[in-house]
Amino acid sequence: MVSLWVNRLFRSRGIEMANKKVWKGRFKKDSNEDMEQFSHSIDIDQRLWSDDLKVNLAWAEALREIRIITDQEFVEIRNGLERIRTEFEKGEFRFHPQDEDIHTATERRLTEITPAGAKIHTGRSRNDQVMTDLFLYLKREIDEISILIRDLMEVIVNRAEENIDLIMPGYTHLMPAQPILFAHYLLSLFWFLKRTIDRLGQAQERCNIMPLGSGAISGSGFPIDRKLLANRLCFKHLSQNSLDITSHRDIPIETGSILVMVMVVLSRYSSDLILFSNPNFGLFTIDEAFATGSSMMPQKRNPDSLELIRGQAATTIGRLAGLYTLCHGLPHGYNRDLQED
Amino acid sequence: MVSLWVNRLFRSRGIEMANKKVWKGRFKKDSNEDMEQFSHSIDIDQRLWSDDLKVNLAWAEALREIRIITDQEFVEIRNGLERIRTEFEKGEFRFHPQDEDIHTATERRLTEITPAGAKIHTGRSRNDQVMTDLFLYLKREIDEISILIRDLMEVIVNRAEENIDLIMPGYTHLMPAQPILFAHYLLSLFWFLKRTIDRLGQAQERCNIMPLGSGAISGSGFPIDRKLLANRLCFKHLSQNSLDITSHRDIPIETGSILVMVMVVLSRYSSDLILFSNPNFGLFTIDEAFATGSSMMPQKRNPDSLELIRGQAATTIGRLAGLYTLCHGLPHGYNRDLQED
Amino acid sequence: MVSLWVNRLFRSRGIEMANKKVWKGRFKKDSNEDMEQFSHSIDIDQRLWSDDLKVNLAWAEALREIRIITDQEFVEIRNGLERIRTEFEKGEFRFHPQDEDIHTATERRLTEITPAGAKIHTGRSRNDQVMTDLFLYLKREIDEISILIRDLMEVIVNRAEENIDLIMPGYTHLMPAQPILFAHYLLSLFWFLKRTIDRLGQAQERCNIMPLGSGAISGSGFPIDRKLLANRLCFKHLSQNSLDITSHRDIPIETGSILVMVMVVLSRYSSDLILFSNPNFGLFTIDEAFATGSSMMPQKRNPDSLELIRGQAATTIGRLAGLYTLCHGLPHGYNRDLQED
Amino acid sequence: MVSLWVNRLFRSRGIEMANKKVWKGRFKKDSNEDMEQFSHSIDIDQRLWSDDLKVNLAWAEALREIRIITDQEFVEIRNGLERIRTEFEKGEFRFHPQDEDIHTATERRLTEITPAGAKIHTGRSRNDQVMTDLFLYLKREIDEISILIRDLMEVIVNRAEENIDLIMPGYTHLMPAQPILFAHYLLSLFWFLKRTIDRLGQAQERCNIMPLGSGAISGSGFPIDRKLLANRLCFKHLSQNSLDITSHRDIPIETGSILVMVMVVLSRYSSDLILFSNPNFGLFTIDEAFATGSSMMPQKRNPDSLELIRGQAATTIGRLAGLYTLCHGLPHGYNRDLQED
Repeated sequence: MVSLWVNRLFRSRGIEMANKKVWKGRFKKDSNEDMEQFSHSIDIDQRLWSDDLKVNLAWAEALREIRIITDQEFVEIRNGLERIRTEFEKGEFRFHPQDEDIHTATERRLTEITPAGAKIHTGRSRNDQVMTDLFLYLKREIDEISILIRDLMEVIVNRAEENIDLIMPGYTHLMPAQPILFAHYLLSLFWFLKRTIDRLGQAQERCNIMPLGSGAISGSGFPIDRKLLANRLCFKHLSQNSLDITSHRDIPIETGSILVMVMVVLSRYSSDLILFSNPNFGLFTIDEAFATGSSMMPQKRNPDSLELIRGQAATTIGRLAGLYTLCHGLPHGYNRDLQED
Repeated sequence: MVSLWVNRLFRSRGIEMANKKVWKGRFKKDSNEDMEQFSHSIDIDQRLWSDDLKVNLAWAEALREIRIITDQEFVEIRNGLERIRTEFEKGEFRFHPQDEDIHTATERRLTEITPAGAKIHTGRSRNDQVMTDLFLYLKREIDEISILIRDLMEVIVNRAEENIDLIMPGYTHLMPAQPILFAHYLLSLFWFLKRTIDRLGQAQERCNIMPLGSGAISGSGFPIDRKLLANRLCFKHLSQNSLDITSHRDIPIETGSILVMVMVVLSRYSSDLILFSNPNFGLFTIDEAFATGSSMMPQKRNPDSLELIRGQAATTIGRLAGLYTLCHGLPHGYNRDLQED
Repeated sequence: MVSLWVNRLFRSRGIEMANKKVWKGRFKKDSNEDMEQFSHSIDIDQRLWSDDLKVNLAWAEALREIRIITDQEFVEIRNGLERIRTEFEKGEFRFHPQDEDIHTATERRLTEITPAGAKIHTGRSRNDQVMTDLFLYLKREIDEISILIRDLMEVIVNRAEENIDLIMPGYTHLMPAQPILFAHYLLSLFWFLKRTIDRLGQAQERCNIMPLGSGAISGSGFPIDRKLLANRLCFKHLSQNSLDITSHRDIPIETGSILVMVMVVLSRYSSDLILFSNPNFGLFTIDEAFATGSSMMPQKRNPDSLELIRGQAATTIGRLAGLYTLCHGLPHGYNRDLQED
Repeated sequence: MVSLWVNRLFRSRGIEMANKKVWKGRFKKDSNEDMEQFSHSIDIDQRLWSDDLKVNLAWAEALREIRIITDQEFVEIRNGLERIRTEFEKGEFRFHPQDEDIHTATERRLTEITPAGAKIHTGRSRNDQVMTDLFLYLKREIDEISILIRDLMEVIVNRAEENIDLIMPGYTHLMPAQPILFAHYLLSLFWFLKRTIDRLGQAQERCNIMPLGSGAISGSGFPIDRKLLANRLCFKHLSQNSLDITSHRDIPIETGSILVMVMVVLSRYSSDLILFSNPNFGLFTIDEAFATGSSMMPQKRNPDSLELIRGQAATTIGRLAGLYTLCHGLPHGYNRDLQED
């Protein structure tokens, strides 16, 4: 369901990581494991599974409280969910061809484990469940990305301090304009990242609202205690309009916009570093761990990692445009188009 | 310089206005002047001029304080700027073919009026001037747009109250799903707009930082009192890194992203209203002031205004993608590419 | 109606022109008039007017043949159209606030000149008229752009011949890879342009189909001789399905895609030239006529014209995405959204 | 390397298939296997492998002709490639973590099988090899897609004939405008598809040019008989400029543009069918095999398959924009950014 989205999140994070290493890498040799991982695509559905399991458990508790499921059934469901978690953690979970998405897959597996699983979908819809999973996921992702960005900011400050006397040419129109401190150059990224941290925090606050209980479109028919539910899932607020929260995608797209801007800005610094490390500029040398050679031309040290960041930035711009387009002109309420988000 | 950007801002605002009327229009007849204006493109450079004149005046004061210009010259410059303001307000300002942008135009005109005008560019660059103009402009625009959005929110609440008993079908997959209150439907837009107001306020806070004094890339060589300057221009903060603030475009693009999302969401409600007012659905009737007829088919009442909102939403998605692309891979410092922003 | 589209076409052409000059400019000094024009936006609606007048005249003839208008009325209409043409050529045509688009403007003016003008809209719709105007326009534009591209190809071949012994470094990953002939480098653009000429010719062939007679959606109710009409308007073929030709926008968007690719490729050569003319590379010097200086740093020679090409390429990518988005998910038949095309 | 690109091609084709079935499906019940496959992502790298193996074999023959490899080595290489083919066909090929792309993977495996494999890369570069693989792939894909489109055209003609008397409302602005034949409506898609077939044929012709022998940037240092090589690989023409053919991506992006337009147009017919099959319009009924139900609302028959087409169209628009952006402003010669294509 959210594969593209998740994929972009992951990629962005991957790039953060790799980029941090790029900066580090110039100073202390490191394994190039990140580089390799960077080029590969990893299935991170596992993370969404953990959100889905969490939501299922909380929902089961809520159903028990209103006597839809018995205490005994709840225990079976809780154990079943625990078992599924283990299967995921061990990489033993098996998808079935008819599993439409992760939500149906968990539910299907749960029902295989215990017949009580069939009751878990009572009073909710995939529409509110999906959004709840997604918001939990976004909140966690923003946390992780923010940590990576802060790490990068710290690296920047350290490099700036260590090289406080280093002078380099400042460019406008790529023409040498005025001499600047290398530290000043580095810190120009720092200030952008600081704004990014602010933005991410504010976007995360908007994810801190629980959609569960919204049903397909007009709420749940059951007297669920949503406040208690939100507490258990660590949401600060409850969504106030079921139609709003299941129809709109402004909250995930907002996070996407912020991350795409990070990619775009990193692509600019990548362009800079590609140029600065170019023999014609000769300001920097790229660490071997982040460069590649050429079979035909052994003298070369190609800045592949930086080019990949630039390339992935282009791809994410397109994806963001695609997400906006996806929502463009779409009627209200859930439409399957949104599977593409 | 920022024409496209400005154009988009304007368009978005135009659409807000028009849209507000659409909602109003269903209940009390109104002139269709907005509709006409809505289809036309207006030159709103005048607004940027006012920012540019404000920046010029504040800069002249700063130059006087450090004795770069005399008191007498300052008076001439102030009077000159006042005269230019009057020319703009009366629509009498004449552009010259060699005026590259509004900044050169003001300066050229000022120097025609008084030779002291030639001193106004001392110690600054177009790079920091442009960004200062732009931030002033964005702050004002966000204020105006926020007022329009709040107006729309109020209209929504009023309509919801007035029609509190009205029931309509709720749709998912455009299939009638469950009955909902019309008020519930209306308020789903309200909650999105509330998030938008929050976002705009946060983005505006990020515009509340004065770039002036950053020079082309590495600051001004003159001992300008930036704090005093910021006070005069009503900026809360000073930019901390000259390279960051003249290179990056994340702040205007952030505002753009928020407004494009507004357009996209309005395009969804437009699609809804087009359908709901369709004879086959028959839920609403579009007021004549916002519909058009057909020469060949007089029975028709076409929802042109709603279609135009949808169409403009598509265009703004493309423009946003273009803005991200513009910055993609660009070296640091000002590059003329950015004229396109 | 087609303003954005037209604007793009113009811009692309403008850039072709400028670019040709860029190449020329390095060798013989030229006026920088193109440069100036290049930065300004010109209203080229006048060109569409000429298409619209042509279509009106041909349609009037067709209506005379089926006795909808008398010979006398036809003469008045012809003279009226001639007079409107003169007004446009002299820049004396005055738009009215209620002129929705160029088609209504011409018709309104014609009816002012002669009451017979009111008959001109008989048996047609704006839907088929717009597409006919647009196809005529596209055919002419493709001719003009193709000439400009061929000129550029010729310049390339001449420069290649003149500099046949000149060797330069060839780059991959922006790292010096292998020495190549400058002529080889130049000709790499030639071959791309050759493919572009092929594409444009093929796209033009798809514009060579007359929509007129399709009406709003289901054809005209009058026995118009479409073959004769097509002959007069120099169309090779007649559209075969009225719904297809008035609904779809694949033909103009195809032309747009080709031109955006031209922009993208020119942006690459612009990036190359910006680098090659950079003091650190030092391979070329940009002619002063195409560079700008800096008030703060008189030593600089900024490659503004090349940066503008790159910037405009970004903008056109966004516009193209916007055009695709515009059509995305749109119901069949004309919808006002398409005004944005 | 070309994963995104390939993925898009596949998806487009998947949609063609699914769409064809949608049309068929309304008349004869079919298995919903397509539907399932449609929602899943399949690894189609295997197809690119076959191109890569073909190129490797042809290149080995060319190297034998100039005595770089012996007859004996050639036999070993040929057998090795045959074995790799079998491994792929049986799904037994195992990627190594260090396989950067399919080209390195084949070569790595070949060298495991026979030491002669180490010679296969002599005189060529991944740059020309990649483009050769890609062009072979595009040629085949265009063939397959064209067949699917022709099938769809045939279905359209048959349905039009079978329902020649069926009348439906034609819409503009989604308002009932004039009655039209259902056949007329259907055929409006036919004519668009016909233009698509023309475009694909012309694009395919531009893929009919062999890049092999271009080396990294400036050709191969070995006296390869390119004509013979092209004959073996069924290319009509030889690339004339090594830099042009390894740098530019206009040819694959052209094909992409055509297919995205197909998606966009299909998204329009999907929107139409979603509306027409809506109970409020009631013109069509979607076959159960292509609709889904709802757990909460058993009365619903949701047009998921059509919504997915619309959603995927949005995604492909974004990808296309991403591809253009990828190339935007990129220096000449291969840059790793292009891995993202």
